[in-house]
This record gives sequence, C-alpha cells and structure tokens, in this order.
Amino acid sequence: MMRPRVGHIQFINCLPLYYGLVKNGVLWNVELIKDTARELSCHLLAGRLDISPIPSIEYSRHWRELTLLPDLSVSCDGPVTSIFLVSKVPIQDLNNKVIALTNTSRTSQVLLKIILEDRYQVRPEFFECPPNLGSMLREADAALLIGDPALYIHCYPPEGLFAYDLGSEWKKLTGCKMVFAVWAARQSFAEEDPELVREVQRSFSHSMSYSLAHVDQLSNEAARWEAFSADFLKEYFTTLQFGLDAEHQQGLREYFRRAHALGYIAEIPQLTFLEV
Amino acid sequence: MMRPRVGHIQFINCLPLYYGLVKNGVLWNVELIKDTARELSCHLLAGRLDISPIPSIEYSRHWRELTLLPDLSVSCDGPVTSIFLVSKVPIQDLNNKVIALTNTSRTSQVLLKIILEDRYQVRPEFFECPPNLGSMLREADAALLIGDPALYIHCYPPEGLFAYDLGSEWKKLTGCKMVFAVWAARQSFAEEDPELVREVQRSFSHSMSYSLAHVDQLSNEAARWEAFSADFLKEYFTTLQFGLDAEHQQGLREYFRRAHALGYIAEIPQLTFLEV
Repeated sequence: MMRPRVGHIQFINCLPLYYGLVKNGVLWNVELIKDTARELSCHLLAGRLDISPIPSIEYSRHWRELTLLPDLSVSCDGPVTSIFLVSKVPIQDLNNKVIALTNTSRTSQVLLKIILEDRYQVRPEFFECPPNLGSMLREADAALLIGDPALYIHCYPPEGLFAYDLGSEWKKLTGCKMVFAVWAARQSFAEEDPELVREVQRSFSHSMSYSLAHVDQLSNEAARWEAFSADFLKEYFTTLQFGLDAEHQQGLREYFRRAHALGYIAEIPQLTFLEV
Repeated sequence: MMRPRVGHIQFINCLPLYYGLVKNGVLWNVELIKDTARELSCHLLAGRLDISPIPSIEYSRHWRELTLLPDLSVSCDGPVTSIFLVSKVPIQDLNNKVIALTNTSRTSQVLLKIILEDRYQVRPEFFECPPNLGSMLREADAALLIGDPALYIHCYPPEGLFAYDLGSEWKKLTGCKMVFAVWAARQSFAEEDPELVREVQRSFSHSMSYSLAHVDQLSNEAARWEAFSADFLKEYFTTLQFGLDAEHQQGLREYFRRAHALGYIAEIPQLTFLEV
C-alpha cells in the first residue's frame, strides 16, 4: 500500500496547515507534493495526486470527478490582504482599459471580473502574464496580484496607485464570505479507500486547529524563514479562515452563481462531500 | 532568508532519517527535496540543493566543491542485504561474460568492479540499464541490483541463480566497513552560513539516533506503507549503519584507494569535514 499522495500549496496562506502537519507528525503518513494551487489541480485530475487543495473555480469545472473534504478551505470574511487589484485610475474608471492578470491565479481572475461587472459595471480588456507589478503596469492600466507580491502591496502600499482588496470588494458586493481554495479527493480514490481519505481529512483539520491555537508560536517560527514580521504573519493568519461551514458554502455557491451568470463557468456545481 | 534546501534519498534505507525528521518537527526548518542519490548529487552540484546525501563515489569526483557533514552516512559492516549481484554462473566464472548494471547506482557499480577484479580476478563486460531482473538476465549473464529490487532478492532468493551481497564481499576482500552514501554541503553554502549547516547536521544526527532508539515503533509504522514486514524492516534498519566514525572513514578511504588504483576515479579525495 502506498502513502496517499497529497498536494500542498507552497504559499504563506497554507503555512498554518504545514506547521500543524510538521508538529503533529502527519508527514509520515502522507506523501506531500508542493506546488501552486493551479498546478496541483492539474496533478489531481491527471491522477498524479489523490487529495489536494485546488482553486474553487477548478472544482466547479471538474466536480463530477471530485469529492470535497469537509471543514477545510482557504477563505476570508472581508479583507484577505493577499489578493489586490492595483490600478493607475479609480476602479470605476476601468471601462475599456487594460488589466494584466497574474497567471498564478484561477479563482481570483474570475472573482475580479465578477466584481468589475456586478459592482462597478465596467468591462475592461484582460491579458495574462507573470506576476511582476512593474512590467504589468508598463503594458496595462491595472494589475491583479495574489500571494507574496500582493502581501508586499498590503505592507507597503504603492504611492500614486489605487489598491483594492478583492476580499473586501466581494464582501461589499454580496455580504458573503469568499472561498478561494477547497480540498478535494479524486472520487475514484475516495470510493476505493474512504477511511484513508477520512484519516487525511481529520489530520489536516486537526493540524489547522493546532496551528491556530498556537498562532503566536507559529508566527514567530515562520518569521525566521519568511520576508514578513511575526506580527504581520499573525495578523494575516488570523485574517484568513480555514473552515468550510454553512456560511462559507453559501459564499462559494454565490461565487459559482455569479461566475455562471456571467458565462465564466458552464454550470453551477453541486457541493458533494466525503461522508465522515 | 530561505530554508536550506536539503536532499533526501527516497528509498527504504533512509526511512530512519525521515522518521526522525517527522517525529522531531525538523521539516519545518528545511525544504526537503526527495530523489535518488544519483539525482540528488546533480542537484547539489548544480546549486539546486544546499545540503544532501550523495553517493560516496560522487564525493570523490567533486570533493573540492563539497564539505562533509560529520557522523552521517549510509554504511554497512558485512551484509547490506540491499545490494546484490545475481548471476547465472558462480562469480569466479564471470570472466569475459556480460553484466547488466542498474542505472540507479553509482557507488555500487564501482564497488562491484573492485570486488570482481581484486577478489576474483575476473573482467567481464558491462552495460547499464533500468533495474529489472528479468530483462537484465535476458541480455546478460549477471545483474547488479540495489534498493527495493535487491531487497526482494534477499527476501525471496531466486532459484537456480547465484546471489552475492556486495557488503559481505567487500568485508571479505578488505575487512572494512563500506560507506555507500555521505552527507555533504556545497562548500560555498557552508562558508556563508556554517551555523545553519551545523544546525541541520545536529538535527539529522539526532533524527537518526531517535529512530534507532525507537526502531520497533519505526518498523511497525513503516510496515503499513512498505511492501515488507515489520520484522524484516527492523532487521534491515539495524543491519545498516548511519554513522561516520574512524572505521567508516577507513573503509571509505580503502574504497577510494582501490577505485583509484583500478582507474575508476582520477584522484583519491581528501575527507574535509564541517567543523562542529
């Protein structure tokens, strides 16, 4: 029997999960493969992974092949501080302008388009490129950034530019929480060995609880290796939410509903969960 | 500051190291990259890793760029049980015959050639290929296997074939211990941050001691995921040696001396250690 092959998002937002896995010895019982959320979803669908975090939008595109793991997500309720639109002009003036989208994002690209259309009634042009603010703004009027580059913008707001936190914008538009990533197993794997998937789910859920109960210690230990202070990391980790309760699911459904209404996904997926 | 990028041999012989890393929370402070020893040495020399286990023979070829970590190796004193020559004829009859060498090995290929020449005075032909005993013996009179395929041979000795444990053969030839892999840091990395390398060395050394002090528990937990019984794994883990004391170093020097005398390495390397 092989250890289950489990994906891990190698970005600061998933450090609490990794910290708990390390401190609780979980890495003995899983084969952890690190990559971006976007690449992980490719690996999962191609059968190179058994269980993985994936962008929410990818779940909607492949939900018939997948089973959601309960109580796990990367979400926010208002500001997220790591997903920003940075613009040379106010957001409501972006109609017919050009926006550069980081190619590291899936869910946030569609989230931005929903916010622009549904909240501001603006329809810009878009192109995808690597996440470099300087070169993005040479060729575009605004840029979508996620992850580390976006956290820098939160820490050091650029002068003369407008910056919009997409978590806050989503909250203002819908009143909902926003779910950026969910954990899923390949359905065939979950059917073959449901108890093993439940074991992984319990370990991960416990790891998250452990990390948030020890968030000071986590933030101090993380600051040794990350380009941010312990205080900043603690604020970030406690701003993010990692559960998937009824309100998160409501936010996820609202995201899928609007993405579908605007034509970005072909259907509204069902949320099918592993039975625990 | 980035976590040091550290290589890990993803084979059963290094499970005790991994177990200790997991149980002692060390994986928080290193970025672990798993591969074969052969590939890891490429990554280390190319600067994609900072510290790694590497085949002993690779150390001899690049020792001026490397610094050895004290007290760490994969060695044996007599039988190793995971490195076998499997032959259709007795080993002393292999002169002018053909031997297939697994392409997953570096140190063991040269070890076999030393044993054949110095102990049996036979000079066969060699070719390299993937480790599959069946196809190897279709095209050759004997086959060198290491790792999992060799462990199977130890568990289930093939009928009608001669099997030679290269650890035992080396012991009979020289009276020495045999060192298959050593841990090394890139010298430039070790000079830049010696205390960080010392920290990794201490963590790894402690992980090994921990695992061997808990070898029953380790073997039981490993048997869940490996194709071998807990009893077999315990026997294997306690047959292997993981230190690098004066006797190991003597064995390593003897290996380099003989490899050089037969023309397999250009010079006999100095053993230069990190100061701790």
